[in-house]
Amino acid sequence: MPQAVTACVLIIGNEILSGRTQDVNLNHLATTLGEWGVQVKHARVIPDDVDTIVDTVNETRAQFDYVFTTGGIGPTHDDITAQCIAKAFDVPLIQHPDIEARIRQRPAPDDIMASRLLMARVPTGASLIDNPTGGPQGFYIGNVYVMAGIPMIMQGMLSSLKGALRSGPVVRSRSIRAYMGESQIAQALGEIQDKFPEVDVGSYPFFRESRYGTNLVIRGTDPATIEATAQAIMAAVTAAGETPEDLGEE
Amino acid sequence: MPQAVTACVLIIGNEILSGRTQDVNLNHLATTLGEWGVQVKHARVIPDDVDTIVDTVNETRAQFDYVFTTGGIGPTHDDITAQCIAKAFDVPLIQHPDIEARIRQRPAPDDIMASRLLMARVPTGASLIDNPTGGPQGFYIGNVYVMAGIPMIMQGMLSSLKGALRSGPVVRSRSIRAYMGESQIAQALGEIQDKFPEVDVGSYPFFRESRYGTNLVIRGTDPATIEATAQAIMAAVTAAGETPEDLGEE
Repeated sequence: MPQAVTACVLIIGNEILSGRTQDVNLNHLATTLGEWGVQVKHARVIPDDVDTIVDTVNETRAQFDYVFTTGGIGPTHDDITAQCIAKAFDVPLIQHPDIEARIRQRPAPDDIMASRLLMARVPTGASLIDNPTGGPQGFYIGNVYVMAGIPMIMQGMLSSLKGALRSGPVVRSRSIRAYMGESQIAQALGEIQDKFPEVDVGSYPFFRESRYGTNLVIRGTDPATIEATAQAIMAAVTAAGETPEDLGEE
Repeated sequence: MPQAVTACVLIIGNEILSGRTQDVNLNHLATTLGEWGVQVKHARVIPDDVDTIVDTVNETRAQFDYVFTTGGIGPTHDDITAQCIAKAFDVPLIQHPDIEARIRQRPAPDDIMASRLLMARVPTGASLIDNPTGGPQGFYIGNVYVMAGIPMIMQGMLSSLKGALRSGPVVRSRSIRAYMGESQIAQALGEIQDKFPEVDVGSYPFFRESRYGTNLVIRGTDPATIEATAQAIMAAVTAAGETPEDLGEE
């Protein structure tokens, strides 16, 4: 079986840590990369602070196959991601001619253009990530991919990477719903997990339309093992006197 | 000035990293703790894996005044947070009599009760965090606070900690909206940031009702400095030919 390809997501921005902004980028990255065979195994939310960003990038790029960052690549003083990545890789920051060309397509007075050109800065040796929304591109250097924080722009940049990343086995998930408490199924579930160690069996309680229930989620790479685990779980729910609802892949 | 009190949030759960579930706990924790004078400076999302949880807890509890975890304290095999915290503190896991008493209030057959009692496990020396929703309590040991992953329950547990945490200066935020691109204000904003280094000036572009704009956010602990910075920003927006909209504290 091919080896898993792993990723770490770094959400860079004081506004997430202050609670001002609800992050939605991690969820989109996890879902999309997962479909491409890249498993997000870790994420960090860190402030706009040079030392923190540099140290975190260097720590995580050594641990995971890919690191994806979002945030901090705009034209203002608090946009410090590009310079931090350059520092992490110990290379000079340059103005990339292709990003510059795109920025200059839209004329502006000198002082405004000077600010906009800050978005053309990339570490020496970086390659570009296209920005289908038409704005300045993102970039990657080594295994670190640097994208915008605005969700619409980040999603556009990510979409341009489709097919360009190394991929491993795709983790599929299969869900079964049971209107019963977690404790009612806990013991059987533990035994099923022991019997099928190649998959992860997760249990997620919910409360919906005045009823308690549990979503039982199987995650794994081998369809046959997932199916066998699903059958075992449905049998256990039935044995406990409830009717399992097969939600299929979701 | 009293020293800042800092916190790290650990979101524990494969379901967040797979993209199946959108985390909302970090945002609630950041906002609520911020109001209490505890600044969330860092967050990590980590999988249900013993070594990862133990190492992350030990690394972060040494770096921050508080660590708050969410997730992994239910009754099933994938709920491993309590045992990981015990391992991180190198103390035995015990069954807490107060949690046990609460669980036994609701009768159940032996096997289901056995599963439910797994939620009574805490590290030796832990104290309880009340659970106003009526379910099993959370706990804390040292500076590590362990709470449920289900948002409604986590929020209830957190609310019971009001007034119980050490607190530092509260970071206040003040927002000004300007219907202009970031680049138009970038230079002036950088100068204002240099002039008022005690506050953080952030710039967040948006697109709303077919108009581009930028929210300019000042964050700091001293009301007079925040006010002076706000006045400087509004003057800069006016000088650039736009009308600033003072959104006040938000």
